[in-house]
Amino acid sequence: MHDLDSKPSDIRLTQTVKKGGCAAKLPAKDLRQVLTGFGTNPPPQLIVGMGDMDDAALWDLGDGTCQIHTTDFFTPIVDDAEDFGAIAAANALSDIYAMGGEPQTALCILGFPQEQLPLALLKPLMNGAHRIVEQAGACIAGGHSIENPALIFGLAVTGRVGKEHAWTNQGSKPGDVLILTKGLGTGTITSALKSGEAEPEWIRSAVDSMTTLNQAADLMRDIPVNAATDITGFSLAGHSMQMARASAVTFHIELDLLPKLDGAMQCLSKGVLNKAHRTNQLYVESDVTYDQTGHPEYWLTLDPQTSGGLLFSIPKPFETQALAQLQSRFPLATTIGKVLPPETHAVHFAG
Amino acid sequence: MHDLDSKPSDIRLTQTVKKGGCAAKLPAKDLRQVLTGFGTNPPPQLIVGMGDMDDAALWDLGDGTCQIHTTDFFTPIVDDAEDFGAIAAANALSDIYAMGGEPQTALCILGFPQEQLPLALLKPLMNGAHRIVEQAGACIAGGHSIENPALIFGLAVTGRVGKEHAWTNQGSKPGDVLILTKGLGTGTITSALKSGEAEPEWIRSAVDSMTTLNQAADLMRDIPVNAATDITGFSLAGHSMQMARASAVTFHIELDLLPKLDGAMQCLSKGVLNKAHRTNQLYVESDVTYDQTGHPEYWLTLDPQTSGGLLFSIPKPFETQALAQLQSRFPLATTIGKVLPPETHAVHFAG
Repeated sequence: MHDLDSKPSDIRLTQTVKKGGCAAKLPAKDLRQVLTGFGTNPPPQLIVGMGDMDDAALWDLGDGTCQIHTTDFFTPIVDDAEDFGAIAAANALSDIYAMGGEPQTALCILGFPQEQLPLALLKPLMNGAHRIVEQAGACIAGGHSIENPALIFGLAVTGRVGKEHAWTNQGSKPGDVLILTKGLGTGTITSALKSGEAEPEWIRSAVDSMTTLNQAADLMRDIPVNAATDITGFSLAGHSMQMARASAVTFHIELDLLPKLDGAMQCLSKGVLNKAHRTNQLYVESDVTYDQTGHPEYWLTLDPQTSGGLLFSIPKPFETQALAQLQSRFPLATTIGKVLPPETHAVHFAG
Repeated sequence: MHDLDSKPSDIRLTQTVKKGGCAAKLPAKDLRQVLTGFGTNPPPQLIVGMGDMDDAALWDLGDGTCQIHTTDFFTPIVDDAEDFGAIAAANALSDIYAMGGEPQTALCILGFPQEQLPLALLKPLMNGAHRIVEQAGACIAGGHSIENPALIFGLAVTGRVGKEHAWTNQGSKPGDVLILTKGLGTGTITSALKSGEAEPEWIRSAVDSMTTLNQAADLMRDIPVNAATDITGFSLAGHSMQMARASAVTFHIELDLLPKLDGAMQCLSKGVLNKAHRTNQLYVESDVTYDQTGHPEYWLTLDPQTSGGLLFSIPKPFETQALAQLQSRFPLATTIGKVLPPETHAVHFAG
């Protein structure tokens, strides 16, 4: 039970849980209903809080800078412990980057099934997390662990950003273009992994994408970013709906322009969906419209992303420059649509 | 399954999990072994990090203040959802207070068994957490939730403290007295609650204690606090061992002086122990000594506390003043021992 030396290499982590990664989020619609009314009277220092459906909390430190605070954690999305630790870390850090900040301290959030898995698994798990946190220039400064029937891992992270440079999901303007930095499809690919239907190269490229830090503030320094968010469990449709609502605009996104991870469309065309695809569908149904729901990319817009890309809203004149700069680090970065004045719905997918 | 309106009042939360509260921590000794070697090369801003076994991370903001960052979460320790939320919040905030700071932003950490419990439970749970966080002058600014086989709730919290006023577990000095602010016994009492052996008034007084904020910085403003920590899952023995080691001193604690919650000794004398009593026993065995292990208070020193009291190390001349000030808010606050130059062990329990 407390075997610290056993070789954990033959354990397939995804087989120890029902759902992996951001697919294990609670349904956004139900959550929203239950949590309505909380956080309605925040202190003046809280610039972004619970009511904003943004990526992280933004707290004015009073010296021209803000503290960013976020947390993210989930069950295994891949079989390898080191990959899982790295993905969970990149995913948690992403919320800091989505606000244009730099991460500082990270705390580990760990639930561990001692009766099911050897504690020795924590070594590669922590190695993976540590590598990514170090790459981000931050540090793991502690954490908390409990026994839990399922393995859960993630981070709570603080970061800092100049008050004038903080990106939120609220400033998107008609005339902006929408740029997405990573390919979509981690939800369906990792579901296929779990059921043994994914090709090894699809898994490798999805892991590469999920462990890529969303560090983009330096690339966007000379671009007037009007709004930004990261695409995670609530899918491109859900997170773009939140950003469009928060900005009181409508997004027009072209399905044909969506960047895709290798294998994503193969998995979706085989019908590899998980519960989060359906809860995301319910979450957005009243405020997101489609030319047609039979389009091959329909489920891709609802695919729950783990450590997905950043979605930027920037003025059209800066599009070429921004794309060139982003593609130096994010090869799949591409324009996926534009911002319109508010219509009756928050997002429309055309195509 | 997504029943948002059902009355959750007949659900006994403690019956939905194997272990509750801080008793569900992973064994400290095993964790320490697995995590050795991480956090050995922290950035210069990190004043207190992973290697220090302290309550929270302390990060120098460079303006004479430090950011404090901590997280704590666990499974239900009581049956009532609102009490559980309030206890989890007070317990998580405690690490900020243990460093002398004031809390700012709190993020909810939630694992929820949708197939077992109605989502409507989140209302009272969040009400309880919200009430305590508001009482602390902080705010719930977001969070993250996942489906999980067991209910888990807690917070990640940031706080701030003047660099010169930050308390750590490292400055305890020979000649100091040790003051504990709350009664011990939440572990055995809540285990008795779970098994139906606890009197209602024991539960009430334990809940009152666990929902009492460890806000004491204002009371100790004119006291030169040399070291402080809060007593949680690793028990009085475990946390005082960490503080004595970090300060390179030896603590001499009198068993007869330990403050006790109503019913704690009755529960322990009936042998109501949980697994954490044993893992704490293993954790401290090499560095904590006792006159005799047959003393009635022996297991009380190993009792896993949830939202337990603060342990202060202050110079003897300030004892009377500190006690008077602390007792105005913490009626059970009392001196439990003294600090000696380093001996071969970190802590000795006399009596």
